[in-house]
Amino acid sequence: MKIHIVKIGGHLINDQNILNFSLKSFCQLKGNKILIHGGGKKADIISNKMGISQKIIEGRRITDKDTLDIVIMTYAGMINKNIVAILQSYNCNAFGLSGADGNCIQSNLRKNKKIDYGYVGDLNGKSINIRLIKFLLTNNIIPVFCSITHDGTGNLLNTNADTIATYMAISLSREKNSEIELHFCFEKKGVLRDIQDSKSYYKKINFNLFQKMKKNHSIKNGMIPKLENAFFALKNGVTKVSIGLPNYLNDMNNKTIICP
Amino acid sequence: MKIHIVKIGGHLINDQNILNFSLKSFCQLKGNKILIHGGGKKADIISNKMGISQKIIEGRRITDKDTLDIVIMTYAGMINKNIVAILQSYNCNAFGLSGADGNCIQSNLRKNKKIDYGYVGDLNGKSINIRLIKFLLTNNIIPVFCSITHDGTGNLLNTNADTIATYMAISLSREKNSEIELHFCFEKKGVLRDIQDSKSYYKKINFNLFQKMKKNHSIKNGMIPKLENAFFALKNGVTKVSIGLPNYLNDMNNKTIICP
Repeated sequence: MKIHIVKIGGHLINDQNILNFSLKSFCQLKGNKILIHGGGKKADIISNKMGISQKIIEGRRITDKDTLDIVIMTYAGMINKNIVAILQSYNCNAFGLSGADGNCIQSNLRKNKKIDYGYVGDLNGKSINIRLIKFLLTNNIIPVFCSITHDGTGNLLNTNADTIATYMAISLSREKNSEIELHFCFEKKGVLRDIQDSKSYYKKINFNLFQKMKKNHSIKNGMIPKLENAFFALKNGVTKVSIGLPNYLNDMNNKTIICP
Repeated sequence: MKIHIVKIGGHLINDQNILNFSLKSFCQLKGNKILIHGGGKKADIISNKMGISQKIIEGRRITDKDTLDIVIMTYAGMINKNIVAILQSYNCNAFGLSGADGNCIQSNLRKNKKIDYGYVGDLNGKSINIRLIKFLLTNNIIPVFCSITHDGTGNLLNTNADTIATYMAISLSREKNSEIELHFCFEKKGVLRDIQDSKSYYKKINFNLFQKMKKNHSIKNGMIPKLENAFFALKNGVTKVSIGLPNYLNDMNNKTIICP
């Protein structure tokens, strides 16, 4: 079974026109596909309106109870349903899901002795309900996941969308005759050599180059976990991993291909 | 196919302990079932926190763009996912859905020359995607609907949860060999003779009695549309309709049975 797993995030979510365009690119992708979306800046906007300040400890965002409620409302409510309504208008039979729905993604509350991250769920190799996701796909239902998971005992948890996409791809790769392509889509043409020059994207990055880039600090902090997810996926059976603009989905350019 | 359609609303949603209890009663119900939930007071609480005032014209609540965003966030996000996570913890394989997901419920923007109700979606006999809902039920998936629908062209709309339950029941009743039971659950034992006396519920109400009650003003405004939905369902093929506490679902008492 060939499956495209597409993650969209960042500015693709923030701007409605760019989101519509991204969803059109997703629709045009042939065959089985799954969409996973982040929250962009929407949760921050809602937090500000509600007068709830973001808790950041040692540069890490903390999901306290108020923040959890806001991310659930924003990701699973506003953004997810908006995406589904648009996809349906493009005749793309989308089903908006959190990890709790159909027990699709079960996570464990993060335990960290130094920092209490709050209501954050971590994934492992058994988190993804492959059987149910394949059942949806074989019945022409297109799952659209927000980055909310659950712990199986009634609690919802905040989980990184890139990580969900990565574990989704790895878990589905374990199935017989699977061919999984993982696409991290954002507002840039790929991983940039020079952050000031939007055209300066790498066509390919292999693991050695990534190690060098980390050593000489030629990549920004935000890109490091994305590339770590990408290489983790590639090492664990995912057929193809790339990073770039959503229009690359139906194009040969505007993407960085991740190589072993 | 026998299907229970259970609507929960009002105070059952507002209080987490009562909600948990209601969901346990729902889980214990045997056979095919669908849950439809309202929003209780949660949307008002969020509106207040965000400093957005409710627009009410001639006693009718208006869904302007800000209010629509809040009801989507609250109903489809916070409440729906909370319910699904709890049901999953009770081993009840719930799928939280809006009307946009799988194109389950398509509505039309309400057109009213006197009052502009805003982003409100009305239903008709063709609104419910029966095929998809039966497909979910036959695959042991329990649909949990919030009261958000879509118009098919990318717009989400606010729709009354009682009305969704009613049209869901009527539409499924049209299927061959169907047996549909519609349950309106709220915080009272049934339709009360005396609003001050919580034990004074009618065991049965028929259409004639309802007409008399309306004439002599012995029922409150809020109950009239609920009973109108109930009689509308009964007249359109729904097998059984009742109103009461959620524990009546597994009990003979604590409910008002609606009779022709």
